[in-house]
Amino acid sequence: MTSSAVATNRSQPAMVSENCYDVTTYPVGNPYEDIGAVINSIIADIKSRQSLSDLNDGGKPGAVIYIPPGDYRLVTQVVIDVSYLKIMGSGHGFTSSSIRFNTPANELARWHELWPGGSRILVDVSPVTADGQAAGAAFHVRRTGNPRISSVEFADFCIDGLHFVDDGSGPNEAENTYKNGKTGIYVGSANDSFRITGMGLIYLEYGVTVHDADALAIDNNFIAECGNCIELKGMGQASRIANNFVGAGYQGHSIYAENYGGILVSANNVFPRGASSIYFSGVVRSSVTGNRFHSFYPGMLVFAANCCENLVSSNHFLRDREPWAPMQKYDNGLDDLFGLLRIDGSNNSVIANHISETIDTRYIKPSAAKPVMINVVSGSGNYIANNHIVATAETSQMNDVPNSACFATQVGALLSTSNLKALEVTTVLVQDGSMRNTVLDSGNDEEVVMDRARNAFRGTPVPAE
Amino acid sequence: MTSSAVATNRSQPAMVSENCYDVTTYPVGNPYEDIGAVINSIIADIKSRQSLSDLNDGGKPGAVIYIPPGDYRLVTQVVIDVSYLKIMGSGHGFTSSSIRFNTPANELARWHELWPGGSRILVDVSPVTADGQAAGAAFHVRRTGNPRISSVEFADFCIDGLHFVDDGSGPNEAENTYKNGKTGIYVGSANDSFRITGMGLIYLEYGVTVHDADALAIDNNFIAECGNCIELKGMGQASRIANNFVGAGYQGHSIYAENYGGILVSANNVFPRGASSIYFSGVVRSSVTGNRFHSFYPGMLVFAANCCENLVSSNHFLRDREPWAPMQKYDNGLDDLFGLLRIDGSNNSVIANHISETIDTRYIKPSAAKPVMINVVSGSGNYIANNHIVATAETSQMNDVPNSACFATQVGALLSTSNLKALEVTTVLVQDGSMRNTVLDSGNDEEVVMDRARNAFRGTPVPAE
Amino acid sequence: MTSSAVATNRSQPAMVSENCYDVTTYPVGNPYEDIGAVINSIIADIKSRQSLSDLNDGGKPGAVIYIPPGDYRLVTQVVIDVSYLKIMGSGHGFTSSSIRFNTPANELARWHELWPGGSRILVDVSPVTADGQAAGAAFHVRRTGNPRISSVEFADFCIDGLHFVDDGSGPNEAENTYKNGKTGIYVGSANDSFRITGMGLIYLEYGVTVHDADALAIDNNFIAECGNCIELKGMGQASRIANNFVGAGYQGHSIYAENYGGILVSANNVFPRGASSIYFSGVVRSSVTGNRFHSFYPGMLVFAANCCENLVSSNHFLRDREPWAPMQKYDNGLDDLFGLLRIDGSNNSVIANHISETIDTRYIKPSAAKPVMINVVSGSGNYIANNHIVATAETSQMNDVPNSACFATQVGALLSTSNLKALEVTTVLVQDGSMRNTVLDSGNDEEVVMDRARNAFRGTPVPAE
Repeated sequence: MTSSAVATNRSQPAMVSENCYDVTTYPVGNPYEDIGAVINSIIADIKSRQSLSDLNDGGKPGAVIYIPPGDYRLVTQVVIDVSYLKIMGSGHGFTSSSIRFNTPANELARWHELWPGGSRILVDVSPVTADGQAAGAAFHVRRTGNPRISSVEFADFCIDGLHFVDDGSGPNEAENTYKNGKTGIYVGSANDSFRITGMGLIYLEYGVTVHDADALAIDNNFIAECGNCIELKGMGQASRIANNFVGAGYQGHSIYAENYGGILVSANNVFPRGASSIYFSGVVRSSVTGNRFHSFYPGMLVFAANCCENLVSSNHFLRDREPWAPMQKYDNGLDDLFGLLRIDGSNNSVIANHISETIDTRYIKPSAAKPVMINVVSGSGNYIANNHIVATAETSQMNDVPNSACFATQVGALLSTSNLKALEVTTVLVQDGSMRNTVLDSGNDEEVVMDRARNAFRGTPVPAE
Repeated sequence: MTSSAVATNRSQPAMVSENCYDVTTYPVGNPYEDIGAVINSIIADIKSRQSLSDLNDGGKPGAVIYIPPGDYRLVTQVVIDVSYLKIMGSGHGFTSSSIRFNTPANELARWHELWPGGSRILVDVSPVTADGQAAGAAFHVRRTGNPRISSVEFADFCIDGLHFVDDGSGPNEAENTYKNGKTGIYVGSANDSFRITGMGLIYLEYGVTVHDADALAIDNNFIAECGNCIELKGMGQASRIANNFVGAGYQGHSIYAENYGGILVSANNVFPRGASSIYFSGVVRSSVTGNRFHSFYPGMLVFAANCCENLVSSNHFLRDREPWAPMQKYDNGLDDLFGLLRIDGSNNSVIANHISETIDTRYIKPSAAKPVMINVVSGSGNYIANNHIVATAETSQMNDVPNSACFATQVGALLSTSNLKALEVTTVLVQDGSMRNTVLDSGNDEEVVMDRARNAFRGTPVPAE
Repeated sequence: MTSSAVATNRSQPAMVSENCYDVTTYPVGNPYEDIGAVINSIIADIKSRQSLSDLNDGGKPGAVIYIPPGDYRLVTQVVIDVSYLKIMGSGHGFTSSSIRFNTPANELARWHELWPGGSRILVDVSPVTADGQAAGAAFHVRRTGNPRISSVEFADFCIDGLHFVDDGSGPNEAENTYKNGKTGIYVGSANDSFRITGMGLIYLEYGVTVHDADALAIDNNFIAECGNCIELKGMGQASRIANNFVGAGYQGHSIYAENYGGILVSANNVFPRGASSIYFSGVVRSSVTGNRFHSFYPGMLVFAANCCENLVSSNHFLRDREPWAPMQKYDNGLDDLFGLLRIDGSNNSVIANHISETIDTRYIKPSAAKPVMINVVSGSGNYIANNHIVATAETSQMNDVPNSACFATQVGALLSTSNLKALEVTTVLVQDGSMRNTVLDSGNDEEVVMDRARNAFRGTPVPAE
């Protein structure tokens, strides 16, 4: 066949592979009214077309479901029980709903747009029942038996929880509660080699919750203005949370893991609020490296329930005060003696981090307390070295920032480092229950508080003058 | 409906969603003659189809514009004023135009191809006018009012500026000037959650220039052989520049930011030339971690205009001499006393970096000077610890490398570390105007020059023998 | 034209660009029987349509070849000799074949699926001939002349080698040999700006082998259960291996490079087995930062053949014992005196790493030996600082884990850090042939073994009690 014949032939309308689905062209259901029912129908179609996987190389390859840019309401929860399913869109569509909901209606009338966009799922699942978190999920992955469900991928679309609800603090505050019982992606059973990339998740009480993951990748997502952003639950290993923009609500976790080993949390830009930027419970031999964390409260990084042998290095931690008026009434309830970083566990490494706190002394709790930067509350054998801790007292008034100036003010607050005076802090506190720790060059003699007979210490040298 | 009926139905030609555009099938304009006019027409179509965003969840989802592999001339500047627009191709298409333009014509006659490829925009905008840089941009994002324009995405295509122009150094050098007044992507107004990923930008005077960004991601791009590669201007925060290949011209910046807070510059491979690999002006509380920087001149990393509380850790810095004959006549004009890293500002952290300089002593300027590796020129409270500085004097002649051997020679120069002798350098210089800095294990007693009464010092131990 | 007319027009079937190919719609060959022949025909078509690249901006843009989800046998090797070719699928499709092949048939009868999936290439190339590794490659890139072949991209599909073969250890062990002469992607000639992203490679003797690369990106892939995973051979520079999941066989390398300069190995999660997690031979001025490495044997990181000026920082190293019964009979043959990290070369930096070994003392070889963590065997000027080395002796019996409990057991092993007692190790050994090294805060006086007159030393402080 000549190449011109080939070219002619190719200009015929393409026969799209039967393993490629587009929610807007699939003949069952209406994706604009309920994309959940459409995707469930597609999954049933995929499974009905799969022959038995056999020993002679014959697989069940799965499929890709495409969600073009558009608004798609999801009433029926999507249930995924098939491996190798990729659901993808063409736009993460993030915009700040928090700023919008705290903007007066008369200003909104002039706004270009009010909602997130891209390939956008409007989560409208029924109210949460006694089934708990899973019932409120837009996407629910679950499969029993062997092998673990593998290689499900979510990419490049938006899951929008739309509204938060009144939790008792009053209707005016409903959109600031970070509560609505909705979850973006809920993985309830053991899984292998999943990927969640390029997504935009917003105004969900829980963004992504994954149980029992092996080799999970959560990369390059925008998961913010969610009650909790990323949660690894159950027990798992060898996963990566990298290059995300993340920021949870004042009562939730930006990044949470429990009973995992071998996680790599790398190069994320985690912004406020977030009761914690990162919270590990019983996590071991994992890494938190090269991240930038910004928080408005103590307890930015918490290692709880005997976390062991984790590495925290090359991170930038910044804690300052909430500059935005609508949110200044909220915090995570912790005081400044809790520790900006708090470690319960043994043999962890905290090396080469920059840790910064800037706060007007009148906001310190308890009053006149000396804030604790790294608080080792239990365990032994932790190695804390070469951390540079910078604490300054704000002298300017930062509260009552009008909504419209929010962005500029936040940036301005970051930039206004002149006229700051040093703030006295305890850079490292090793509590009496903890021993055989090593603290090097992370504060001088006065700044590090611990039993120097039972722990090893070398203070950061100080200038003679 | 049975699954077989579904399958039958699906084999009909797909109705592509109206929010998915392909520049080659759009009925207005000719994308090969002026893709700019085509995309502007598409944007007008998107906007005309958008209803008013309403309070009842109804959004303006935006659209995706696809650029298949091909050569597309851009005469008319694309103006983007709509959120949630994704422009994507299928190939970054980078190849070195610099090597090609410095190859004799008789050799070029045998070359397989002469130009970059992939989904390639040939930037042919009119000469720059008094409007300045924005006028020369291929893609210009601008929108006034609220909210900030959000979630515009550029992915996986090539923007080729084609030629540099004679800046007075003569027609033979025109293609080596890095000047043509062209910009690949210019964002002129405040923006949120933009993404620029997988792009190839080449032979533009400015690759990407973004003003007033919040949560911007510039990831996995190939931005090289541009006068300046990545510029963050105005004032912004919480952005990420990660996993890029970057290399600017001898007068430009590879990565530049001014008045930003909370940037994360991570895991980039920044190669020469570049007057600077990274230049921060008034930037605070940002991170430069895990990058690999290679430069031919002093001033690889410059913190200017009172940069504060930035973290520079786990980076690899290499400075050697330009080995390629056509470019040996150019440099950035700085001498070896300027500092390979230069810090104007306070409370920055420079920890756990490898810093390498290899240069024949006859090329050191001023003659017989002792090159300065880290130069702290002002401010206070900087913490410089655990940096390993290796300086060696080349003994081999490296100039007059023929073009065709460029790649092998550059690699060979990197690899030929035998027969190198130690070069005496000042590893850290703290100038008199700066005080209360801490310098630990980053050079021995002789290598670190500063007022030891006003700064804290611990020298790297030296062997007894 | 009104916008409604535009919309009407656009709802016609799309004319897909001639530079976009779909293997399932291309009229030559049968992609399910031999996708190799189909892609080779497409490449011939691309080349036949390319006019001569000219000096007047006219390029050869290349093309994109799409592989929808599905099973595609590859009998004929794909030979790529055209720049700007992107081959992409919609699913990396990884699942563990190793667990499956070590599961009894009666259990498999109940499994949901047996094979990897996604856009899956079943590699069925002819047996390896005298031509060596290239002959067994599924994808073979080669082109002579200038310029170097550029911007070939592989994205988001699966290459499955299907089976390993009996290497003499008996038919029952055939699937555990990691041998079959197959390579996923083999690049045999000098190349520039290639990208390999989002791929799944499995059950290949060699995953990706690239010679003479410049600015190569190998990112976000899943390359596991291959004999060797990533190999950079010949001589090259300025490349990046980042954010991958990698795990090789017990005789192979997870990440290997020789004679390269300026590589950045960053944020990879490298799991067992792998004779080495990372092996550099004659590599200089490269970075290994922010990775998580897990291994079952000594020799996790090997710098051989005079590696110079490399930076190893912020990595987490864990070595424990193989917990999975089917693989406990294999190892890499090295004993515990070899070094968990082994350095032959000069002026390298090993800073701020967490290094962990947990092993029952009865498995230490030679018996009763004190394991070596960092072994500097030659060279001079290496800088080893602020590494936290944690060694513990397992007290629980971990062998004979049943297959079905593999995942839970591996995780459990990671998590069971209670009841561990300290294991005596040599944290740093500098052999007599090496001198002028600096060892700081990486072990106390007893744990660091070297000539203290010829090297510089500062021991980690120890508590008084």
